[in-house]
Order: sequence, then C-alpha cells, then structure tokens
Amino acid sequence: MRRALRGVSASRGIALGRARVLQPRALSVEESRIGADEVPAELARLRAALDATRAELRALRERLHGALAHEVGEFIDLHTMILDDPELLQGLEDLVRTGRYGADYALRLQRDRLAAVFEGMDDDYFRSRVEDLDHVIGRVHAALHRREGEEIAGLAGEILVCESVAPAELAAWQARGVVGVATSTGSPLSHSAILARSLHLPLLVNVPELLAHANDGDALILDASLGELVLDPGPTDLKRYHARQAEIGRERAELARLRRQPTRTRDGVDIRLYANAESREDVAEAHGLGADGVGLYRTEFLFLQRNELPTEEEQFLAYRDLVLGMAGRVATIRTLDLGADKADRTGLALRSEPNPALGLRGVRLSLAHPALFTTQLRAILRTSAYGPVRILVPMVSGREEMLKVCELLEQARAQLRTEGHQVGPVAELGAMIEVPAVALGLGDIVDLVDFVSVGTNDLVQYLLATDRNHEALAELYSPRHPAVLRLLAEIFAFGRRNGIPVAVCGEMAADAANVPLLLALGLRDFSLHPSTLLEVRKAIRDADHASLRRRATTLLRCHDRAAIERWLDRC
Amino acid sequence: MRRALRGVSASRGIALGRARVLQPRALSVEESRIGADEVPAELARLRAALDATRAELRALRERLHGALAHEVGEFIDLHTMILDDPELLQGLEDLVRTGRYGADYALRLQRDRLAAVFEGMDDDYFRSRVEDLDHVIGRVHAALHRREGEEIAGLAGEILVCESVAPAELAAWQARGVVGVATSTGSPLSHSAILARSLHLPLLVNVPELLAHANDGDALILDASLGELVLDPGPTDLKRYHARQAEIGRERAELARLRRQPTRTRDGVDIRLYANAESREDVAEAHGLGADGVGLYRTEFLFLQRNELPTEEEQFLAYRDLVLGMAGRVATIRTLDLGADKADRTGLALRSEPNPALGLRGVRLSLAHPALFTTQLRAILRTSAYGPVRILVPMVSGREEMLKVCELLEQARAQLRTEGHQVGPVAELGAMIEVPAVALGLGDIVDLVDFVSVGTNDLVQYLLATDRNHEALAELYSPRHPAVLRLLAEIFAFGRRNGIPVAVCGEMAADAANVPLLLALGLRDFSLHPSTLLEVRKAIRDADHASLRRRATTLLRCHDRAAIERWLDRC
Repeated sequence: MRRALRGVSASRGIALGRARVLQPRALSVEESRIGADEVPAELARLRAALDATRAELRALRERLHGALAHEVGEFIDLHTMILDDPELLQGLEDLVRTGRYGADYALRLQRDRLAAVFEGMDDDYFRSRVEDLDHVIGRVHAALHRREGEEIAGLAGEILVCESVAPAELAAWQARGVVGVATSTGSPLSHSAILARSLHLPLLVNVPELLAHANDGDALILDASLGELVLDPGPTDLKRYHARQAEIGRERAELARLRRQPTRTRDGVDIRLYANAESREDVAEAHGLGADGVGLYRTEFLFLQRNELPTEEEQFLAYRDLVLGMAGRVATIRTLDLGADKADRTGLALRSEPNPALGLRGVRLSLAHPALFTTQLRAILRTSAYGPVRILVPMVSGREEMLKVCELLEQARAQLRTEGHQVGPVAELGAMIEVPAVALGLGDIVDLVDFVSVGTNDLVQYLLATDRNHEALAELYSPRHPAVLRLLAEIFAFGRRNGIPVAVCGEMAADAANVPLLLALGLRDFSLHPSTLLEVRKAIRDADHASLRRRATTLLRCHDRAAIERWLDRC
Repeated sequence: MRRALRGVSASRGIALGRARVLQPRALSVEESRIGADEVPAELARLRAALDATRAELRALRERLHGALAHEVGEFIDLHTMILDDPELLQGLEDLVRTGRYGADYALRLQRDRLAAVFEGMDDDYFRSRVEDLDHVIGRVHAALHRREGEEIAGLAGEILVCESVAPAELAAWQARGVVGVATSTGSPLSHSAILARSLHLPLLVNVPELLAHANDGDALILDASLGELVLDPGPTDLKRYHARQAEIGRERAELARLRRQPTRTRDGVDIRLYANAESREDVAEAHGLGADGVGLYRTEFLFLQRNELPTEEEQFLAYRDLVLGMAGRVATIRTLDLGADKADRTGLALRSEPNPALGLRGVRLSLAHPALFTTQLRAILRTSAYGPVRILVPMVSGREEMLKVCELLEQARAQLRTEGHQVGPVAELGAMIEVPAVALGLGDIVDLVDFVSVGTNDLVQYLLATDRNHEALAELYSPRHPAVLRLLAEIFAFGRRNGIPVAVCGEMAADAANVPLLLALGLRDFSLHPSTLLEVRKAIRDADHASLRRRATTLLRCHDRAAIERWLDRC
C-alpha cells in the first residue's frame, strides 16, 4: 500500500530503489525440486543472475568517487571475490544439476554451507565475513527474481532504511549498492549528514514511523531534497519521480554553466570561494569548479583506520599531491583534529571522555604529543616548496597555545633547513576560530596569525552549549541566533581592521540560504565542500552586496531567531 | 617508611588518620583459640571494642552537618543497627565462650556467617549490605587492636585513599568515618571537590603515586591546605601537624570575628554576599554568617535519590522553610537543573548523552516537561507570601526560552490566584548566565529579567570548550583567561547601565584569591557556599575598591593567563 512519510533533508538528491532494512532478515526460501528436463533452463537462469550481479558490482565500483573511494572499494572487491569463488559456483551448479534443486534453494543451501565454514573459524575477521556473504547471496537472489520490464527492481539500487547510520557505515553501504539512506532518527548536522553530502548520497533523517512501515525489498522513492519518502509508489509517483529527476538535471545543468563564472555579486564585489577537501577527488573537483583554493584540507584520514601513525614521508606525499593539484592556488592544511569522538586505532586520542566535544582534541592533542605534531608540521613545511601553503590550527583557545605552535613551527623550519630540505619562503599560519574564548579574544593572538578560519559548526555548539548531534536539541542548535550573528560580524570587522583574512569553513557557509546573512555580516571568504560550491556561487551572484551591508544594522538588532528568519525572508 | 606525596588541594583542611584503601581487602585473621580461664578477659575485651565502636559511630553522627546530613545519616543508622543486632552480639559471645575462639577470630567467623546470609538473599539491596557489614566489622576489629597511648590510631578517623571518588560516595564515606580523602586522579573543580568543600571534608586530588605507596591501615597526615600527604609520619610530622592545627584554629577564630562585620571594602564600598545553599543547615549557616540572602538555592536534591517526582506541596514546604529561614532576606530559588550527568531515578533526565554538558539540561529539560515545570513554579510562587523570593532559571540560551518561562509563570500565577492561594505581590525572575550566547546577548532578554546570576563554572567550560572535570585539561580550564575576564566586565557593566543586579554564583566567587579580580571587573554581588563566606568577606574588607577599579584597564589589556597572574601578584 502506498504511503508517504516526511523527514528532514540531510543530503539532497532523489533515488528510486528497493528498501534494505537493517538488519536484513536471513534469506528464507522453501525447499524446491526440479525435473531432469528443467536442469538446463535452471542453470541458465542461475548463470544469468550471477552475471547480472557481477555487472551490478562493476557498475557500483565505477559510480564511486569522493572521499572514501579507496576504502569503500575494498568492500566491492571482497564481494566480487566471494561471487567469483569457484567453490561457491561449483557448489551451486552441482546442487542444481545433481541435487535437482531449484536455483533459489540451491543458493540458500550453498550460503548455509559457506556460512558454517566462516563461522567455524577462530578469526573474528572471517566470522564477520558472513555478513558480506549474505549481501552477495541477497544480491544474486534479487537478480534471480528480476523480471523483464520490472522497472523499479531493474533500475534501482538499494535504499538503506535504519534507525541511525554511522559515518563509516555510510561509505560502506554506498559501496554495497545503497543509492540513498533514510533513518528514523538523526540530525542534518551530524557527521553522517556531512559525509553523505560529500558522497552525494541522498539522506533523509528523522522519519519517525519509518521502521514500522518499511519492509525489506519494498519499492521506495526517496526525495531527500523535498524531505519525502514514498513506500510502494504508484504510477503517479513514478511520473513525478521522473519529472523531479529532469528538474534536478536542469538545475544541475544551469549550475554547471557557473563553473567558469566569477564569484561576484550583482553589484560587482568579488567574493572568494575556497573548498573544504580531504581527498584527491575533492581537490580535483574544487579545481574543476574554479575554487580560489583549498580553505580547509582535513588530515585526519591519514590517521584513521590504521594501526600505526603515518610517517613524515607519507604525509609529505599526500600534502604535496594537494599542493600540486591546486596548481598555484592556495592550499590550507589543517593540522590533526582528532578527539575521543573519532575512532582512531593508533591509540592517540583518548578512548572515551564524559564530554568529547569539550575534551582533549585538536591542538590540545597535538601539543600533548609534540613529536607527532612536529612530524606533521615538517611534512607541511616541506610542501611549501611546491606552491602556496597555509597551516591551520584547530581548537585554539588562547595565546599560550598559539605561542607553543609558533615555537614548534620555527624549530621544525630550522631543522629542515639544517637537514638541507627545500622549504618555501613562507607558510602562513592561521587559527580555527571555534572556541568562543578565542573568538572573543582575537586581539590576543592577532600578532601570531596570518589568517583565521571560523569553524561555525563547533563555535555554534559551544556558544549555545548545545551538542550539534543531539536530536532533541536540533531546534536549539542553529547559527541563526542573534548572539552568533553579532559575534561573526565582530570577527569579520576585526579581520578588516587588522588586515587578517577571515573565512568561514563550517556548514553555515555551505548552505546557499545563508549567503545573504553572511554577506550582510561582512564575510568575503567562504570555504565549503565542492558539492554545494556552485549553489553558493549562484546565491552570491544573485546578491546585491551594498544593499545587504546596509541592512546589516537591522539584522544585528534582531533579538531572536524568528526576527532573523523574517529578515532573511525579506532578502 | 616515612614518605611525603604532593597533590592538588580540592578542599582545604588537615586530618590525621589511618588509610582506608579502596577496595579494602577482606579481613584476614588466623584461627586462634583461648583457654577457659581466658574467656572472661576476652569477653571484656570484645565488649570494650563494641562499646568503643558504638561511641565512634555516635561521634560521627554528631560531626555531620551541611548539605547531605540527612542522606549520610542513613548510613550511620544502618551501621549502628548492624552493630546492635542481637544475632551478631550473641553469636560473637557464644563463639568466645563456647567455641573458645579469640575475639578476632570470632569476629571473622561471625562476619562470614552473616555475609553468607546476606549474599544468599535474592534482593540486590541485601546483597550489597555485605559491604556495610564489612565496614562495621572492620571498625570493631580496629577497636580491638587499639592500644592505650597509641596516639594516631586513638585519635584518628580514617583517610580514604582511592583513584577517584564520586560525589555520592564522598558523603557516604564521611558517614563511615572518613575524615579526609586523597585520590590519585581528579580535579579541584569537580563536583566531588565542590561537595567536599561543602562537607568541610579535606580532599587532596591528583596525587600520582598514591596507590603505589599507601596501604590499608597506614598512618597518614593529610594536609589538603598545603597539598601534602605524609605516609607513616614521624614525631616531627606530628609536631608540625599539631602546630598546623593550632594555626588553622587561630585563623578560624580570626574569621569568626568577622561574622558580625559588614562586607565593606577598606574605602567603604558595600559589597553583597549571598549564600549558595541546598539544605536547611546551609541556610542556617548563611543566616548565622550574616549573608545578605540566598543567591542560589539548588532544588535538585528534591528530585534525586527517589523514584517519583516531588509534589507541589512537598516542594512548597521545602521552599517555605528556606524563605522563613532567611527571615526577611531574599531567597533565590533556582529551578530544576538536572541533566544526563546527574543520577536521577525518576526517569526525567536522559539516561546518557554523548556530551551531557551540551545536552538536554536545565531549562531545556523543564520546558520539555511543562507540567513538571509548572508544579515547581507554583510551589515557588506560593512561598512568595512568606518573604522576598526570586526565581532563577538555569541554562537559558536565548529570548525564546525566557519568553516561554514568562508565559508559564504568568499562567501559574493566574491559576494560583483563581484557586485562592496567597501569592506575594512580586517574585522577581532572573536568568543564570552560563551559556555564552546569552552572556553575549543580555540585551535580548533584558526586558524579561529582574536580575541575573553568572554561573562561571559552566560559562568558563563553554567559553574555553573545556570540560571542567577533565583531568588532562585541568590547566586549560581556568576563569583567569583574558576573554573570560573581559566578558565578565561587560556583563557587570551591562547590569550597571540597565539597573539589573548581577551576581556571580560559580566557584570563582567562592575563592578569596579571586576577590581583587572580581572587584576590579566591577562585581558587587557575590554568591557562594557559606563554607568560604568569611574568607571572602575578609578579602573584600582588605581590598581598596577604587584602586582596583582604576587598575581594571591594565587587567583587561592582559593577553594571556600569565599576565593576569602577574596583575594579581601586584594586588
């Protein structure tokens, strides 16, 4: 029965597919026997399904791009390996040919045999492979039952339906064929949401009745842009889906025309658009979109999902790729921003803290491990011979920390020169402005920084004392709070007065709807993931800078969020 | 062997005692038999030890005062009950008389019998009573071995030695005879530290080598004021201990003379000293010390350690006691400030949150449960017929929340009048200033509040994005940060300009060392626990207000903490 559910858009886009409800129920198939004369046809049916599954996996592999392509690719390779395993194939054919079982039941029997082998192993790794086996078997099973002309099943990947999804899972699920995700809980401000946007994976969160209504295999249309999920869609829905697809296509084409256009307001004010990036693909995309540089290059990926710390050489090569990839435009590398909330296997970050958001993270962790920090600073400094490089320090809370950073940086520079390394003439140093105390005390560090970048995600979280991933507080957490806007205006004004470039690199800057706000407050440098760069450029090109600046006075006099929203409505 | 260890003072005071290392090892006693002629003497020895233990418990009960006396008393009553249990006594005497066991071994046998009974019970409550039984038995055992003239053992209570201590445990341990606590970890800013100060229980934290060196039963001198712990002290130490005791006695006597003195600076500026309180004892103490009123009455105790919510009547009676106890001076009642970090059995607060400090707490929780909030507001409003009452709302982050509070308050007031309740002519409404956004946006709520109170504990935690209980960040967490001081100065100035009284009710105001800072920044209203009220009054009376205010300019130009400390050194 058709049913439409509402949710909150966390990563835009639309998708058509079959529901994969977490945890998928085990494949349950009735015993079926076939006659001797049916064997050749059944074998052909089985082989066709296996071929279709191989093609599906290949297509998935090609569709992958962005941040976690290398990691995610592993899953597909593993699934392809399972699928090509001679034991699986031989076993299946024997069961059909000799055992006279139907292909479905043969699949079930062979699955159980292999699962028993995996489960009998001592090694956790192999035991956990049963899940992968089930994904492959499930995929073949679906292919066996795909009828010609069955548009939904034919077209579709899978739409993951679950209570919540962790960032790492998200990438893995995309690798496993998931084309969209709907969760019954969650917030558009979570790390998962940020990652989904970076993976261009539609994500709808906070769909309260989701798990009560969706069943494994149901046909679904997910419109994460409109915030809607349709279960068991009818012909009208499909028509609308195609129309929406076309519309989104047109919008994309329109945006694509902005790739080579300058980022300039209607009244001729140039605005800089930097990219947030953490992979070669992001960098290439940023370059292709005409970004003014990389405003925030995250380095955590070098430290996560591995058991040992990356060497200086390894880091140097990664950072040099970035610098070369930007072809002369500035590359801003943020030093390690690990904390107890990020899973790190090296043992660097604390395992758990009562309040990880207020814990040993960012520069605090780096300063607690000066040797590690120096290695990273050396690697960055060495890349400065290849192009303009800036160093961005996260979670700075005061002058003392910046002084220590400067000292380590000078030592590293001197060491490198002594050792005969090429070091560029200058690598600018900047601080993330995300701890309120430093946002209020820019004058205390102004002589120690060349630029600053406002991390609104954390800054807002601390200013409002509101966890940005807390579902029950989603309404409270918003950068559209009068105190937040006033503080931003002061930071931007401070930058102008002191000749210090100020960028905003939080999610606030990536949302085209905030462009009038930020321009009015005086922002000139935006830093955002390439995925919404063109939308933001469009909003900037549509804006009249002078009139927004004139209206800032009214904006700064707002006493609550409702007044700010009204101000925006009048833009 | 004598050994002196250093730690961080978390609650001042000195104590002499025997170490009780957590977990205490089970009583281990060799089997011992006595001759028939020895029975009368052994029985006498046993009875003397039992009497001594009873006297000890009685003395403990009398020594209790302050916040948790009623809760803590329960433990003593339970221990007295166990000690007076006829089965225990009869069993012991039989074992000595008939079994011809020595008193020590009889104690051990009888303990094991009773423990087996407790442990055999289905009820968790009784099973956990074995621990209490062990405390009582341990106490009797110690009394059996106390020799005449053995000064340390004779004088002493016990000094708890452990890795860390939770606030609830602290009170319980004090009830069990602990006269001081030393922990290998911990911070002077933790809730345990705050509670220890309120219990007048010396607490030394962060003594790194503590557990490696201290053994159960070791003699100890704990000087939490000087930050020192001496294991196995010698005659010189004991002499010094007595000298320190005398010195502290003199200081106390000197402070006691200030009870009836006005809180006035040397140059004649009157400062108001309000008390933070959460029990009848605190209120009585505040009144006795000449506090100008209660600046912060915490109401959480009414909701904790129980399974159902307190009724309006129950709350009304508690608040009325406070109002009557202040005899015409103002009573400021803070509405419920529960969060996931406080153990509440009613199911009101969330069980766990990834960042409880940034979670659903304070007014957020109250507004999520309007019926509960209304009950509390009604109870407070009803007390306003008995004296001047102010309502203080915690964790306010913006105008929207204050508007909702005002609305509920007006409704409650109207309801009460309709129902014929007596309601005073006015109950002032105030906001805690602890969320940075509201500290920066006082203008947005100024028309909705009659007064504000700055909760520096949380405000500093959010401004510095630093968990105040995080050991590794203890150095980072400090109100002596330039941005914190500048913001405080702005808040105080805002209050003066707008005729809004501003108090500081965080730990910052309770530390006499901060008095010059706070006076210089413009504070006139301090709110602090009675335990340090006289010290703070003394510091105020020693200060020259005009010269401090002149020096504020220099203070506000400090760029780091070191400069602030130098400024203070020159005071």
